[in-house]
Amino acid sequence: MPDAGTTGGSILTEIDHVAIAVRDLESAISWYRDTFGCDVDHREVVERDGVEEALLKVADSYVQLLTPTRDDATVAKFLEKKGEGIHHIGYRVDDCAAALERVKAEGHQVIDESPRPGSRGTTVAFVHPKTAFGTLIELVEE
Amino acid sequence: MPDAGTTGGSILTEIDHVAIAVRDLESAISWYRDTFGCDVDHREVVERDGVEEALLKVADSYVQLLTPTRDDATVAKFLEKKGEGIHHIGYRVDDCAAALERVKAEGHQVIDESPRPGSRGTTVAFVHPKTAFGTLIELVEE
Repeated sequence: MPDAGTTGGSILTEIDHVAIAVRDLESAISWYRDTFGCDVDHREVVERDGVEEALLKVADSYVQLLTPTRDDATVAKFLEKKGEGIHHIGYRVDDCAAALERVKAEGHQVIDESPRPGSRGTTVAFVHPKTAFGTLIELVEE
Repeated sequence: MPDAGTTGGSILTEIDHVAIAVRDLESAISWYRDTFGCDVDHREVVERDGVEEALLKVADSYVQLLTPTRDDATVAKFLEKKGEGIHHIGYRVDDCAAALERVKAEGHQVIDESPRPGSRGTTVAFVHPKTAFGTLIELVEE
């Protein structure tokens, strides 16, 4: 395992996005447009995850508005259990596979054992909230 | 009310921070240092809010690790009710008072009726999650 972590030098290069689970995507997009002047930079249905997302650009980060496209999507279960709100945080990294190995080497639980395709052509992996202070973390390589 | 929101031009200049409520601040700091190589950039006890925070710099944003310093702090109640996890998102703005007025003009509920001092010398105001898709939003002017 690289020891860069103990000698300084974060492998997180940016807060890639903060994901917010909502029931009505159009309504949430309007809210952010009318309140803060945010425009939709990218919109995509991610079939694999059963979600539709709208990305609002804030500097070099995104607010990711997320809504489920089917009842068995994890975001649908999140909405049912917890209601609308912040769902996860995505950290941008240079090398998703290396970052994921580092998380596993530290003994933390992961959701994705290896990197997989994310939206807008990214490579991503999710870290389980159970051993990450209740925080669902996505590692995002552009 | 300015109509910049409908003609483009976001008033959000950066994701200032994502706040994560934790029970043991030292343990969370160690987790982020060991896993991602993040160092503490700033640390502060905010008596008014009953919290101690550690800010980890990620590009021009922060991960804000938050823990309560007293039982009646809102973060203490959050931990009791929901457990550890993402607590709120802070958006950086040029003018906190103007941004807050805009939120109110849109008819959304706010927690702070007027801007107040935040940590590290900032001026802040919180928007209520009830009319913001379950998201506690902090407007941060540096």
